[in-house]
Amino acid sequence: MSESLFSARQQVLARQLASRGLHALAVVPGASMRYLSGLDLHLSERPVVAFFGQEGPPAMALPELEEGKLRGLPFAARAWTYGEDPATWSKAFREAARAAGLDGQRVGVESGNMRVLELRLLQEALPEATYPDGSEALAALRICKDAEEIACMRRAAQMAEEAMRQTLPAIEAGMTERDVASLLTARLFAAGCAPELPFSPIVAFGASAANPHATPGERALRPGDLILCDWGAQADGYFSDMTRMFTYGEAGPAERRIVEIVDRARQAATQAAGPDALASEVDRAARAVIEEAGFGDRFIHRTGHGLGLEIHEPPWIRDGNAMRLRPGMTFTIEPGIYLPGAAGARLEDMVTITEDGAETLTTLPRSLINIAA
Amino acid sequence: MSESLFSARQQVLARQLASRGLHALAVVPGASMRYLSGLDLHLSERPVVAFFGQEGPPAMALPELEEGKLRGLPFAARAWTYGEDPATWSKAFREAARAAGLDGQRVGVESGNMRVLELRLLQEALPEATYPDGSEALAALRICKDAEEIACMRRAAQMAEEAMRQTLPAIEAGMTERDVASLLTARLFAAGCAPELPFSPIVAFGASAANPHATPGERALRPGDLILCDWGAQADGYFSDMTRMFTYGEAGPAERRIVEIVDRARQAATQAAGPDALASEVDRAARAVIEEAGFGDRFIHRTGHGLGLEIHEPPWIRDGNAMRLRPGMTFTIEPGIYLPGAAGARLEDMVTITEDGAETLTTLPRSLINIAA
Repeated sequence: MSESLFSARQQVLARQLASRGLHALAVVPGASMRYLSGLDLHLSERPVVAFFGQEGPPAMALPELEEGKLRGLPFAARAWTYGEDPATWSKAFREAARAAGLDGQRVGVESGNMRVLELRLLQEALPEATYPDGSEALAALRICKDAEEIACMRRAAQMAEEAMRQTLPAIEAGMTERDVASLLTARLFAAGCAPELPFSPIVAFGASAANPHATPGERALRPGDLILCDWGAQADGYFSDMTRMFTYGEAGPAERRIVEIVDRARQAATQAAGPDALASEVDRAARAVIEEAGFGDRFIHRTGHGLGLEIHEPPWIRDGNAMRLRPGMTFTIEPGIYLPGAAGARLEDMVTITEDGAETLTTLPRSLINIAA
Repeated sequence: MSESLFSARQQVLARQLASRGLHALAVVPGASMRYLSGLDLHLSERPVVAFFGQEGPPAMALPELEEGKLRGLPFAARAWTYGEDPATWSKAFREAARAAGLDGQRVGVESGNMRVLELRLLQEALPEATYPDGSEALAALRICKDAEEIACMRRAAQMAEEAMRQTLPAIEAGMTERDVASLLTARLFAAGCAPELPFSPIVAFGASAANPHATPGERALRPGDLILCDWGAQADGYFSDMTRMFTYGEAGPAERRIVEIVDRARQAATQAAGPDALASEVDRAARAVIEEAGFGDRFIHRTGHGLGLEIHEPPWIRDGNAMRLRPGMTFTIEPGIYLPGAAGARLEDMVTITEDGAETLTTLPRSLINIAA
C-alpha cells in the first residue's frame, strides 16, 4: 500500500468530518484503522486510540510494546505510549487528545467498535468534548470498493470455493457438523486463506439449519439430511462470504422445495440489484418470492449485508433502507427459510454493483447437489 | 454442560454482585456470556445484552434471528427480540432492562467488552441507572479454573504442540513468514482445533521478531535466521498460548545469547510461581534475570497474562500487581528481549497454580532447535 493511498483516504475523511461538523474521529483498532493507516492492531485489554482530524497528522495513544508497528508508516503520525500499569493509560490518552487540540470539540466515535473502556478514557482526557456517533463519516468512504479491493474480495471468494471443492469429497455419513467445519477450515488455509477468517464456518445438518447462526455441534450426518454451509475466506484483509446447500443422499420434497424457493428469491434479488436501485428494493425482491410461496414469516432476517474489511458493514440490504446502490458497493444476497425443528435453507452470493448492473463474485452452483452420489 | 453448572455460576455471580453493591451485571456476547449461560453469540452490528441480577432469571435483548439459540437453555431466561430495523433495538433493550427492574440502579458493565453501542442503548433504556465497571465481579469467578477447564486447556496445548510438530519438517529456506503461518494454521485444524483460534499465529524471522506482536509478512526465510512462533489452539472454548524459538541453520552468538537469557528468565519465573506468591513476584523473577544480563530496557512487556475463555484475562503477571496467586489460576510466562532492527526472542509456557507449586501445561522443548539440520 502506497503513501498516497492512506494520505488520500485521510484527506477524504477530513472533508467528511468537516461536512458533518466533527472535529475528529477517534478510531480504535480494527477495520477502520487498517483502512485509514494500514496499522494492524487488535482490540485487547490494552486500549488504543487514533485521532484523525480535519488537519494535521493523526495522534495516537498505544502500548509501548506496539510502538514498533509505527516504524515505516507511510505518513506522519504522533504517538504517546504507556507501559504495563493500567494507571498509565490515562496520561497517554490525555496527551494524544490534547495534542490533537480536541477539548471542547465534537469527537466522532464508531459506537459499534469503540468500547466503554476507550470512551471513558476519552471522557477523562477531554472532559469538555462530546462524542457523537461518527460511524457514517467512515462508512461513506469504505462503502464503495475500488478495483483493487474488489480484486481482493474476488480472490477471497475463489479461495473459499476451492476449499469447498476440496472438502465435499471427504464428507461421509456419521461425521459431525464440527468434523465438517474443521475439515473445511483446514482446507481454507490450504487454499491460501490469510490466518484470520471472517467467521468460523457454519455447518448445519437437518433441523440444525433452522437456526440461521447455528454453531456446529455433535449432530452426525444421516442419509437424507440437508447440509447448510456458510463460510468465507480472507485475502489481504478483505473477506468473502457465501452459503450453499447440499444433500447427503436424497432429500425429501419439502426440503427440495425450500431450497428451490430461496434460489428463486436469490435470483430475483440479484436482478433487482444495480446502480440507483434502493437497498430496500433488493430486499423486497427476495422477500416477495418467499412470501408468495407462503414462507414470509420464516424468512427472519434481512436479505444481505455489505462486506469488505469487515464481514458485516454497510450497505444493509433490508426493508426500509432507502440507500441508493452505487458502483463498487459490494454485499451479500442471502435469502433463507427457517422451519424450527424441521429444516432450514439459505443460499448466499456476493455481488458488486457495476456501472450497469451487478456482478456476482461467487460461482459455485446453487442447485442442490447430492454429495453422496 | 449441565444445568447445575450454569445455575451455580449465576448464583456465585449474584453473591459477588451483592458484595460489590451492584444490582446486576449487563453482559454482552463473548466469554463471560458463554461462561454464565453457555450461549454462543458473537458481537456484531446487532446489539445483544443479558442482565444477570442478584435474583431471578436473566433478562435478555437480542435479534429475532438468534432466538433459536435460547431453545434448550438449561435454565430459565426471559428474552425480548427485535427485527432488522435498528429503530427497533431500543424497545427490546428497554423492555428487558425494565423487566429486570433496573432503573435507578447500579448496573455493572464489562468496560473492556461492552461497546458504546450497547452502553448508549442502556442509558436510553434506563436513564436513571449508573454503569460502573463490574468486570471484577466476573473475573473473580473466572480466574480460578476447575479441573474440567484445565483439562480443556491442556488439550488445547497438546493440539498446538502437535500442529507445530507437523509444521516444522515442512519449513524451507525462501518460505515467507505468511507461508509458515498459513501452514501452521492449517495444521492446527488438522490437529482437531475448534474453528475459532485464540489469535492468528505470529511467525517472525530475524529482525521482524523485534516487534512483540509482529504480523507475518513477506520476509523470506534465510539461513541463520532466528524464527519466533507464537501460537495457540482452542478446545471446547478454552485457549492455549505458547511461544518457541527455532533457527534455520546456525544462529550467531548474539541470537543464541538472547534466547538463552529468556530461557533462564522463564525458568526463574516458573520457580517463583505458586500458591500465595504475588503476581508481581513472578514478573520480578523473570525481569531480574534479564536486567542482570543487561537487557532490562529491552523487555518491554509484562511477564504474562491469564487465559481461559479469553486469550488475555486476569491474572496479569506484571510489576506492581499485588494479587496473590491461588490454585487453579492459569497464565502464561513469556519473557522476551527485543532488539529493534536486529532480532527478538521470547519463550512462552502456560502454567497452572497447584496446591503446592505450578504445573507447566506446555511441553515442547525450549532449547533453540535448528530445523534445517
